[in-house]
Amino acid sequence: MQMAQKPSIPKGTRDFGPQETAERNYIFDTIRSVFRTFGYAQIETPAMENLSTLLGKYGEEGDKLLYRILNSGDAFAHVDPDKPLTPQVCEKGLRYDLTVPFARFVVQHQGELSFPFKRFQIQPVWRADRPQKGRYREFYQCDVDAIGSRSQLCELELVQIVDQVFERLGVRVLVKINNRKVLTGLAEICGFPDKVVDITVAIDKLDKIGLEAVREELIAKGLTPEAVSVLEPVLTLSGTTEAKLATMREVMSSSPTALKGLDELEELFGLIEAAGVGTPTELDLSLARGLNYYTGAIFEVKALDWQIGSICGGGRYDNLTGIFGLPDMSGVGVSFGADRIYDVLKGLDKFPKDLISATRLLFANMGADEVRYLLPLSGALRRAGVAAEIYPDAAKLKKQFDYADRKGIPFLSITGASEMEQGVVNIKNLSSGEQKSFAREDVGGILEFLA
Amino acid sequence: MQMAQKPSIPKGTRDFGPQETAERNYIFDTIRSVFRTFGYAQIETPAMENLSTLLGKYGEEGDKLLYRILNSGDAFAHVDPDKPLTPQVCEKGLRYDLTVPFARFVVQHQGELSFPFKRFQIQPVWRADRPQKGRYREFYQCDVDAIGSRSQLCELELVQIVDQVFERLGVRVLVKINNRKVLTGLAEICGFPDKVVDITVAIDKLDKIGLEAVREELIAKGLTPEAVSVLEPVLTLSGTTEAKLATMREVMSSSPTALKGLDELEELFGLIEAAGVGTPTELDLSLARGLNYYTGAIFEVKALDWQIGSICGGGRYDNLTGIFGLPDMSGVGVSFGADRIYDVLKGLDKFPKDLISATRLLFANMGADEVRYLLPLSGALRRAGVAAEIYPDAAKLKKQFDYADRKGIPFLSITGASEMEQGVVNIKNLSSGEQKSFAREDVGGILEFLA
Repeated sequence: MQMAQKPSIPKGTRDFGPQETAERNYIFDTIRSVFRTFGYAQIETPAMENLSTLLGKYGEEGDKLLYRILNSGDAFAHVDPDKPLTPQVCEKGLRYDLTVPFARFVVQHQGELSFPFKRFQIQPVWRADRPQKGRYREFYQCDVDAIGSRSQLCELELVQIVDQVFERLGVRVLVKINNRKVLTGLAEICGFPDKVVDITVAIDKLDKIGLEAVREELIAKGLTPEAVSVLEPVLTLSGTTEAKLATMREVMSSSPTALKGLDELEELFGLIEAAGVGTPTELDLSLARGLNYYTGAIFEVKALDWQIGSICGGGRYDNLTGIFGLPDMSGVGVSFGADRIYDVLKGLDKFPKDLISATRLLFANMGADEVRYLLPLSGALRRAGVAAEIYPDAAKLKKQFDYADRKGIPFLSITGASEMEQGVVNIKNLSSGEQKSFAREDVGGILEFLA
Repeated sequence: MQMAQKPSIPKGTRDFGPQETAERNYIFDTIRSVFRTFGYAQIETPAMENLSTLLGKYGEEGDKLLYRILNSGDAFAHVDPDKPLTPQVCEKGLRYDLTVPFARFVVQHQGELSFPFKRFQIQPVWRADRPQKGRYREFYQCDVDAIGSRSQLCELELVQIVDQVFERLGVRVLVKINNRKVLTGLAEICGFPDKVVDITVAIDKLDKIGLEAVREELIAKGLTPEAVSVLEPVLTLSGTTEAKLATMREVMSSSPTALKGLDELEELFGLIEAAGVGTPTELDLSLARGLNYYTGAIFEVKALDWQIGSICGGGRYDNLTGIFGLPDMSGVGVSFGADRIYDVLKGLDKFPKDLISATRLLFANMGADEVRYLLPLSGALRRAGVAAEIYPDAAKLKKQFDYADRKGIPFLSITGASEMEQGVVNIKNLSSGEQKSFAREDVGGILEFLA
């Protein structure tokens, strides 16, 4: 027997107790049920992927944040100290996101899939990031993607999914929409096609620092004053989405890329209106998430009543599967951030109250005979789908009450010798105080009282 | 851009496509819903545990099968080749089972839990085992445990849970039950208390090799002929459970340990009868799974109509949390083997037929105007919980039909210009051939037709 160890878990990871697990499942179940009504099917991929699948997909920083797994058998291996360690003893890594494994899955199983392939995936991912408030080394992602169609109906579906998920969760959100082609076009028309990122970052700061400071910043980044003047009508864009699109069409008429992006945006906003989506949507040119990656629409979802970063985001990509040998497969998807959505629901007190206590009824344990008397009834209730417990030990009633209280069990039955003699059970509604007596065989009546 | 790689996944791991994921979720959901009716609450623990939590808990062989994770930042570390590699660069490992993390969880969070603590946990585990048919390096375990009570009612609940799970899954099973204290007593009464494992293994072979060969084997293992003679009445045990228990009581009357075990068995079988459990149960002295670990009841579940190893098993343990500093915490639990249960359901063709196709209705895409005409209706159907898709592209009808066919979608709507003019939609039941026309706003009538 070893010495007792003080137990702990690795930094940046979490245990989830009954309450938190129930709340998290409520989020996952809601998201899943919405995904399903749109015809998306769930898949799962392994936690471990070959390092060759993962490396080079997330930039240099990402490569550093990959968790590497020691080859089995190499735990006591001797290595050559003059060569880098990893290639000698690691061939596998933990999944860093769900996107690259999805691309790998689509290419590997292309023969078995029917396209457009609409999939969702809810699994944990691991990143060796520095842990801090709200950032973990293990966290769940909930990704939904449609791959194999360029139709803007796919973009619409994602907006509808976001709308339905947050309607069901009772959270008001705003969907911000941009298009990578418009950003590319913007950089083209001012003559600095390689400054897409700088221009987008500058647009993002406009509200905070003002037009003059943005102008200075762009010039500091290498743009000419003339180039900045070309951008100005777009920087100061205002009015309705229609008005914004019209202004941009004029300003960027010389860029076929931008015009294509504007066509896409116009079609998408038209579809959103035609579908009667209740959630507000907004064209936001400063949106640039995952810029290298997206080729069309870009999405970001913000909670309206709770201060937190984006709670869902994504976009269209044209080249995701190319790296694994399947070119020209356009797809679009969004990822829901379960941890942030959890924080929003907690903050706004939007979780349903009765999530943990599956258990409706606790039968107090008054002794072995009483338990035997109650066994058929408790079995019948469970078969009817009602969660019922018999306290396992004939402990003091105080202790049994406490158990019901801490588990939030709403009904209690104290059935002793006299009830047994009469062939009845007593059941008390612990919140209203109402108490009723039932024939032990009256499962229907009891179910009604517990409902 | 990198070269295209031929994508693959690590040996012993698996991708699960839409069909398999739906089937596996059906198993998990069934198990989960039964656990809940007995008042068990779900928890989740991290995939990575500290190696100090895992090492030494699964024997020497288990230590070798642990997946170790390279410390972040150490991917390119230079190590001392004269010292073992792991302690220099690994502090974390992947969860090997759900039992040790559960024990760690109970000790770490004991202040927040109410005992008896009834928890279940459905998560993957990882073992660097040699992959072979039916054995994987990543697989799910579904564990249910009650900790903090010595009552045989906990054992009964597990038998009831097994009964309900397999009744709902439509699989006939046999629950074999043994008790570690009886095995210990058996070794005691013949004078070889350290030969528990050898004696149990020998009993297990009785059916195959016969009494004479078992006798020889026990003598080869070091037992005296006299000791074997003492065991003989137990080896040749037959008749009802009551008869077996009575015989053992006589033979082992000198062992308090055995008598305690026989009391427990008698109480448990009595409770099983009182509860009216439909699944057959059987006393089986050859049952010895996880012998070092269990201290009371031992369970194993076999499918009656499909040849495969145990599909569920477990038992009572008294010292699980002691290693983490919390002594005297008795618990009992079983683990359902999702992969084997999957194989049984596949083999017996017991999966429900309509698991994959969430989607009830496909709206064929006849063009942009038709799509806009259908958007409000498709949204209304989804809000009513019915999965409906609009094919994203105005592709050839043949292609759209194929999509419905491969996804097993049972209803198809082809709504073109003439239907739009009349304000109707046509819906066809693809299996019966019945076709009906509805006013576009008649959501109720359409829902009824799709039901």
